[in-house]
Amino acid sequence: MEGHVLALCGGVGGAKFAAGLAAVLPPEQLTIVVNTGDDFEHIGLSISPDIDTVLYALSGLSDAVRGWGVADESWRCMEMLERLGEPQWFMLGDRDLAMHLARTHRLRAGETLSGVTSDLALRLGIAAAIAPMSDDRVRTEVDTEQCALPFQRYFVAEQCKPVARAIRYVGAEVARPSPAFSAALTRRDLAAVMICPSNPYLSIDPILAVPGVRAQLERVRAPRVAVSPIIAGKALKGPAAKLMGELGVEPDVVSVARHYRELIDVLIIDESDAARAGDVEAVGVKAVTAPAIMRTAADRAALAREALAAARQSKGVAV
Amino acid sequence: MEGHVLALCGGVGGAKFAAGLAAVLPPEQLTIVVNTGDDFEHIGLSISPDIDTVLYALSGLSDAVRGWGVADESWRCMEMLERLGEPQWFMLGDRDLAMHLARTHRLRAGETLSGVTSDLALRLGIAAAIAPMSDDRVRTEVDTEQCALPFQRYFVAEQCKPVARAIRYVGAEVARPSPAFSAALTRRDLAAVMICPSNPYLSIDPILAVPGVRAQLERVRAPRVAVSPIIAGKALKGPAAKLMGELGVEPDVVSVARHYRELIDVLIIDESDAARAGDVEAVGVKAVTAPAIMRTAADRAALAREALAAARQSKGVAV
Repeated sequence: MEGHVLALCGGVGGAKFAAGLAAVLPPEQLTIVVNTGDDFEHIGLSISPDIDTVLYALSGLSDAVRGWGVADESWRCMEMLERLGEPQWFMLGDRDLAMHLARTHRLRAGETLSGVTSDLALRLGIAAAIAPMSDDRVRTEVDTEQCALPFQRYFVAEQCKPVARAIRYVGAEVARPSPAFSAALTRRDLAAVMICPSNPYLSIDPILAVPGVRAQLERVRAPRVAVSPIIAGKALKGPAAKLMGELGVEPDVVSVARHYRELIDVLIIDESDAARAGDVEAVGVKAVTAPAIMRTAADRAALAREALAAARQSKGVAV
Repeated sequence: MEGHVLALCGGVGGAKFAAGLAAVLPPEQLTIVVNTGDDFEHIGLSISPDIDTVLYALSGLSDAVRGWGVADESWRCMEMLERLGEPQWFMLGDRDLAMHLARTHRLRAGETLSGVTSDLALRLGIAAAIAPMSDDRVRTEVDTEQCALPFQRYFVAEQCKPVARAIRYVGAEVARPSPAFSAALTRRDLAAVMICPSNPYLSIDPILAVPGVRAQLERVRAPRVAVSPIIAGKALKGPAAKLMGELGVEPDVVSVARHYRELIDVLIIDESDAARAGDVEAVGVKAVTAPAIMRTAADRAALAREALAAARQSKGVAV
């Protein structure tokens, strides 16, 4: 494949797909832009959950069993924090804490989130470029039936139980794309844009809410491919399907196609959704069917290859 | 014993003696004021080594084998911090980290070091009052032959190897005693002041450098007892003896007596220094001989009882 690939990514599912892209592309051909709407401050630490998930996925540190965080984790600090009366709703593993500590003090010393992220990636042996969507503060909030909840409160403390009414990306209106994101969007050799299988509302929309990003994606000449996070009417992980229902959208691949309609050329759907391919194409998006459940590294690489092939074929571009 | 006891304390040796006092006195009769000249900021954390040492000693969490920090410690976060390129010269145990995290974010939220310290003590089940010498920033610096070193750099990173020329307590001139320290100094029922067996220059002098403290101690009517940190010409732990030599003072109990002369009535010296009792008294300080090496909880309590008895006898005060 020639040319550069830009991937937009959220947490777990998206990170797996991003790891697949990193496995099949030369590192200098890949920029992974990560949602920071989930970022928050907790007992004085600056935590970027999606960036960490991507860093762990690409460095092979992810805990496959738990489904989040670092493998071989321990909770000694957390036990003492409990004894000292500190909040327990957000789990801080001993190994994971190192990321938060390193990020927090570097940000406080004046480094940008972009600078911190690319250095942490390098330290973890990751060669591909990983960048936050923005170095400016954007905070996703979920308006629920009861009240507005900051994202991590909704997602972790409330376990997505409150019924969502709307989602806001506070600060997005004045945020600027990170330098690496801007650069990738305007590269002359941009060969494909990939929207990873992440929650469209909670992980990808915050990225699209950064001023200029949506317009740029609409007019980009490179093929744009999304991988559906919804498989057979369900999200493999996370609240995407529940949330879509609450927002009045049918939780299926057609809704995903409709959601991204002006931004993508191709939607990759799982084989179990093959019967819906016609409905997806009726929306004006080409449907490509592939095994979209990623259990192993081989699955991730295979899905990445399918998505890259779909990009190549969609516009006859030499990528 | 009636009346209140005020103890001035540094790290390891002093903390053991303070734990002895806590073991033999009702908690409401004891205020332990701790040196904060060693405090420093490390990868964004506000670390108070002597306060932590006292908290661990009084809560039974100290690591007796290692001689510092928390028992049953692990180093998972530290390993990741190394991988992320963070400095390794100061050891951050997983359990110990909880103290630094709790302190740092509470200070940043506007709590005083006094408030944070007394809450952490309470959480760890400590009933006696533990207070920093000041809520204001005081930072001990050691002028060495090469350059001026912040205390932790000198103590931990350089392992006290550079030759010391002078010691400064930066910020002390404008620091105020903490509220609990001021209150204890002026209590009408003050029955004894104890100077714990801590380094006179690095642990006790910073406390005495807080404006008003020295004058108050000179005129206090309660008996004042110091326990010598120098035993048979050596410090049990730490650089006291080496430092005294470099500062042109003989490292022995007589020098300790001379150092504290105007501030103490009694100096407790170890049995191995019994032959120097006359020399100590020639300085104008009463010498009391007792086993001053604290290996067990029983040793600590016995030495505390000896010191309290010495206080009672020194001025005929009913303490």
